[in-house]
Amino acid sequence: MSRFTAFVTDDVRFPTSQSLDGSDAMNPDPDYSAASLRLGSDAGDGLEGHGFVFTIGRGNDVQVAAIELLRDHVVGRDVEATLADLGGLWRELAHDSQVRWLGPEKGIAHMAIGAVVNAMWDLRAKREGRPLWQVLASLSPAELVDLVDFRYLSDALTPGEALELLEKAAPTRADREAELLRSGYPAYTTTPGWLGYDDAKLVRLCRQAVADGFTQIKLKVGADRDEDVRRLALAREAVGPAVAIAVDANQRWDVAEAIEWTAALAPYDVAWVEEPTSPDDVLGHAAIARGVRPIPVATGEHAANRVMVKQLLQAGAVEVLQIDACRVAGVNENVANLLLAAKFGVRVCPHAGGVGLCEVVQHLAMFDYVAVSASTQGRFVEYVDHLHEHFVTPAVVAQGRYVAPTAPGSGAEMLASSLEAHRRRHA
Amino acid sequence: MSRFTAFVTDDVRFPTSQSLDGSDAMNPDPDYSAASLRLGSDAGDGLEGHGFVFTIGRGNDVQVAAIELLRDHVVGRDVEATLADLGGLWRELAHDSQVRWLGPEKGIAHMAIGAVVNAMWDLRAKREGRPLWQVLASLSPAELVDLVDFRYLSDALTPGEALELLEKAAPTRADREAELLRSGYPAYTTTPGWLGYDDAKLVRLCRQAVADGFTQIKLKVGADRDEDVRRLALAREAVGPAVAIAVDANQRWDVAEAIEWTAALAPYDVAWVEEPTSPDDVLGHAAIARGVRPIPVATGEHAANRVMVKQLLQAGAVEVLQIDACRVAGVNENVANLLLAAKFGVRVCPHAGGVGLCEVVQHLAMFDYVAVSASTQGRFVEYVDHLHEHFVTPAVVAQGRYVAPTAPGSGAEMLASSLEAHRRRHA
Repeated sequence: MSRFTAFVTDDVRFPTSQSLDGSDAMNPDPDYSAASLRLGSDAGDGLEGHGFVFTIGRGNDVQVAAIELLRDHVVGRDVEATLADLGGLWRELAHDSQVRWLGPEKGIAHMAIGAVVNAMWDLRAKREGRPLWQVLASLSPAELVDLVDFRYLSDALTPGEALELLEKAAPTRADREAELLRSGYPAYTTTPGWLGYDDAKLVRLCRQAVADGFTQIKLKVGADRDEDVRRLALAREAVGPAVAIAVDANQRWDVAEAIEWTAALAPYDVAWVEEPTSPDDVLGHAAIARGVRPIPVATGEHAANRVMVKQLLQAGAVEVLQIDACRVAGVNENVANLLLAAKFGVRVCPHAGGVGLCEVVQHLAMFDYVAVSASTQGRFVEYVDHLHEHFVTPAVVAQGRYVAPTAPGSGAEMLASSLEAHRRRHA
Repeated sequence: MSRFTAFVTDDVRFPTSQSLDGSDAMNPDPDYSAASLRLGSDAGDGLEGHGFVFTIGRGNDVQVAAIELLRDHVVGRDVEATLADLGGLWRELAHDSQVRWLGPEKGIAHMAIGAVVNAMWDLRAKREGRPLWQVLASLSPAELVDLVDFRYLSDALTPGEALELLEKAAPTRADREAELLRSGYPAYTTTPGWLGYDDAKLVRLCRQAVADGFTQIKLKVGADRDEDVRRLALAREAVGPAVAIAVDANQRWDVAEAIEWTAALAPYDVAWVEEPTSPDDVLGHAAIARGVRPIPVATGEHAANRVMVKQLLQAGAVEVLQIDACRVAGVNENVANLLLAAKFGVRVCPHAGGVGLCEVVQHLAMFDYVAVSASTQGRFVEYVDHLHEHFVTPAVVAQGRYVAPTAPGSGAEMLASSLEAHRRRHA
């Protein structure tokens, strides 16, 4: 038996605002940051579990402090027993009543749980010597169901229904696993579309995306309507008619504004309109979805938890669900979100970018394909070509597809040299 | 002209878990705490602005750290200009994009804004020499509308509609203000109903509540159904048929369970069923509301922001809206919530208890009565007789009614001696 002995947090910051990488209508000057966690044990195997919360700058220290609140749930705990029952750990962390009060199940306190849970999964995968997606895809339907806290979900999805979904996909898992190893998973790129880029850079990056084999790109919109139309026309001209273009408003609009603005963009063939309004506004998204048809509404990267995802699906508010690796409480809650999407027949196109989000969320998409939805129809994982150089096993995209990772772990581990170089020194 | 010069936070904790005061089905052992803020200036008038976030123990330090994130928005700022445009300050704080990412507009980061905004209102009221409720109730309809950020609200409430509501109530404000000063505002008490109390204490406190003039009490439920029925029967016998009894499940149920459990309690005449499920579950609350009719559903103390309140109202999910002084981003967002409730014709019965929540939220209820809803029909402010001794101007309840405060300020200021005695010393 071994025990968790190390619970080490770091406040890691990258000065991305200097180049306006990541600039959008809501977030003009992000400094991509990670509140990171490293778990160590006395097992003597040298393996560590890595997790993090992605933030965009100030407050990353507060996020680190929130992760520290969970230290006593981890240090001294039996490693093997914990990793064998990550559903149990999830429930224990999510139901710590004093920490829960600070959300409940949302924001800083909830994302902190995600860092711990994801670090546990990283360690488990390393111990098994496999990438996270294969670890998850090797669990039985019953084991997967046990990862999920069905509290607040039973009016939309029961454990029995989840089991049924998973059992239906189980017999053909091996085919899809082999296909992923052979061909990877579809990606789309947001690299051309940041709002802070000038026209020449936009056009150049659009052409590059096509040359790189992407079949969908995404543009940020929402700050200035005429500008958006102009930039979208430029992008459409640059990529040609065969490449899909999604647009992302990053929560800038009210309901009526979202419908009108989207109508102005529609002539340029919009693949989806993303985050048109507040991520909390389920009913607003539903109204927008009705108002912009047949353009699909996409959202989810800021959906605070499985209860919000459940409602987006119940209300018909979303045709594209964009899970995020770090916004909810880790792998377990995202398994719940994937099961909910499968139940409602909605496609999942994970949010990525930031720091390390591509590295981690690709595993969830690949697990989903193998064991849950059994489909890549209309599905892509977002890709942004930033900051991958800081990771031990960076995401690899080739010919517009994520190459299936084969290295053990979740992809969350940053290089020691990057941590050292970008760790924030407190005064 | 004067400048803000002091921005002093404190981590204040009370060991309430020792007596099980505040124990409920979700929160078995809270240690009531406050992440407090004191604003000072170089005005030379000796006046300070006090605000706080209420938490139940661990994590109060993280909440303090989140308030500290907002320091640079305040220190050095022109006091008079800031206090004259608190709508502008609210928008600036809520739209700080790096801090916003940590919510957005929810949880620790959002409550921190509430502490700053409420401290500003406390200072403004002290400068005007009046209690907060009278300061708010003296603002013109146009000034009140300007306090509110209508982003994400316009599908339910436009500035024009808000103005119309406020103008309708304006000519008769003086009558209601005089009435409040004469008779106070109705209260109900939760003191008898904590889950950790034994039968004898429950019955004794129920009888005491009636003797004290309360016409409604509230019991915590949700841990054990048979026990709840038994305790409710005891309480009903103790208070007699004329006193209303509300029940509060503190988010313990799923939809079907909430409907069934409430049906088991219904024979004892339930005034409302509170927080039956996740505070995020608008559609779930709507389903429960349909399933438990004619018993009203109450919720709102954990509604993260005005967007959630909007949806609870749009969906017909709530018949009793329970605003909280500290859960959302302060006075301004609660003005939005009161306007939304008035638009939808839903009564507001504010959540209180904890530390200082009674002291502050009574001002919002009284303002609502004078300037917004113009009604106390079926309305009460919650009252719990704990920890008032730590405040400079403690809430006063007599004959089951809150006595209208007349001291300048918002009620949020704690005694220096209490701060000193209960400030957490960090290792």
